[in-house]
Amino acid sequence: MSSSKCARLAGAAAKDFLSGAVDTVLFDCDGVIWRGDQVVPGAPRVINGLKRAGKQVFFITNNSTKTRRMYAEKLRRMGFEVREEEVFGTAFCTALYLRRVARLEGKVYLMGGKALCQEFDAQGIPYLGPGPDPVSGGMGDWAGVSRDPEVRAVVVGFDEHFSYMKLTKALAYLQDPSCLFLATNTDTRLPLEGGRAIPGTGCLVRAVETAAHRQAQIVGKPTRFILDCVSREYTINPARTVMVGDRLDTDILMGTNCGLRTILTLTGFSTLEDVQAHQSSGCPSRQGMVPDYYVDSIADLLPALQG
Amino acid sequence: MSSSKCARLAGAAAKDFLSGAVDTVLFDCDGVIWRGDQVVPGAPRVINGLKRAGKQVFFITNNSTKTRRMYAEKLRRMGFEVREEEVFGTAFCTALYLRRVARLEGKVYLMGGKALCQEFDAQGIPYLGPGPDPVSGGMGDWAGVSRDPEVRAVVVGFDEHFSYMKLTKALAYLQDPSCLFLATNTDTRLPLEGGRAIPGTGCLVRAVETAAHRQAQIVGKPTRFILDCVSREYTINPARTVMVGDRLDTDILMGTNCGLRTILTLTGFSTLEDVQAHQSSGCPSRQGMVPDYYVDSIADLLPALQG
Repeated sequence: MSSSKCARLAGAAAKDFLSGAVDTVLFDCDGVIWRGDQVVPGAPRVINGLKRAGKQVFFITNNSTKTRRMYAEKLRRMGFEVREEEVFGTAFCTALYLRRVARLEGKVYLMGGKALCQEFDAQGIPYLGPGPDPVSGGMGDWAGVSRDPEVRAVVVGFDEHFSYMKLTKALAYLQDPSCLFLATNTDTRLPLEGGRAIPGTGCLVRAVETAAHRQAQIVGKPTRFILDCVSREYTINPARTVMVGDRLDTDILMGTNCGLRTILTLTGFSTLEDVQAHQSSGCPSRQGMVPDYYVDSIADLLPALQG
Repeated sequence: MSSSKCARLAGAAAKDFLSGAVDTVLFDCDGVIWRGDQVVPGAPRVINGLKRAGKQVFFITNNSTKTRRMYAEKLRRMGFEVREEEVFGTAFCTALYLRRVARLEGKVYLMGGKALCQEFDAQGIPYLGPGPDPVSGGMGDWAGVSRDPEVRAVVVGFDEHFSYMKLTKALAYLQDPSCLFLATNTDTRLPLEGGRAIPGTGCLVRAVETAAHRQAQIVGKPTRFILDCVSREYTINPARTVMVGDRLDTDILMGTNCGLRTILTLTGFSTLEDVQAHQSSGCPSRQGMVPDYYVDSIADLLPALQG
């Protein structure tokens, strides 16, 4: 463990780093550039400034509740200069995974909301399952729930209509070992403004995994699939790319896994105490969650972009 | 690992064991004496025979969907001679836990069905939560769901109406570290007749644990609490008590944890291959899941009780 890890990024060091060592900056969204519907003060000026300085900027988010278009609209409303093609969320990337990696032929049993439906539609991926699915009948009926024989994959994303009936159907499909099992992400909570939180997709994924006695393939961070999606469309040099995020177990770990530089911002989920716990754990697998740098807020990078 | 472990219990050895070494026999239900609504052939004659031979017999089940009375009625319908007081299920034992161990003052936020409600009513434990709880509003509303300030415990049992809204409410209560967090059991699946299965309470528990960043206290096997409930009412000598079950990770492990003899029956969940995997794992913590004996069905014990 190098003692130079997790240094505060500020002043001349920040200026040298951003101007000399970085071509591409990847930003997580929730907890980094906004919290719920509140923009992080200064974030638009930082991101617009990076772009004016000639950097590639991408938005890399595990949240599956928005399409690329919805993200671009929210970003623009908050003052960010952004093109839809710079946004890589798990609704979009899950559709890409099914199309390009799994080369799915058949339907998806989908636990998810409108954004996943729209991104699946855009890729021509047929699905069933969204919306409320009330419980009916008794135990014997649940085991006999009708299965569509064309379903070849179960996808778990954020689903406000998650229910026992949906869990039962997912299990029925996943008992066939050839049925693909995919999850958008495993974040345990979705942070909202004011320090409040609601259960994240990870809770639903663990419920389905527990029933199925199988582990889902994860599209989101910390796996490298989202970065692979970016790399397919743009030229990315990992050694000159930095990942900026608020979660050690997703953002920072993904950056480490992909050979990127990493910056933790303290406006979201993880704390410097969490970093310290990983550093002092003596556990090699936890060192990947220690960032290269930290900032209190990405607004701290503003001086390095000026003058 | 003694080579004498997991021996088939049959013939003279079975007769010697049951007549000379055993005062009390604890039976799991699902997968042992019945599968769904099908009685295991011969099971009533074995259990009635044990009682006639002067043994104490108890029914020890993780399933929270029946009260003591419902169990006694189902058992009698199938031909078992039984008193309600010989049945210890997790609906009943969870109510006892709240009353005697936690000495709860306040209400329970309950994920569970009718049986848990009735056992809570019988113990005078106030609760809220059962029944359907449809999603309404958007993300901001969910984080602001109304909390009853009198709730001092969250209990997760089998709940066919489990939903995202219930998960959100459980998280809201469990963010208070002083709120008790209890689960009836962690069985991952509920076996039905014909080899079919539906998701078990363990799936719901994992979802809530993942949201809450806390682990639930478990009432059911493999913890010793159910046996403690039996021991409070009856004289139990662990060295002369045998636990008969179909699951290595609940029934057999509980037996080992409590210093009982153990018999695996192959009419349910676990197999001899599962036993072999534990035996050959070299992992001390898995040796507790290796039973002393096994039978193909508890009907195999019938000859040992005759003549």
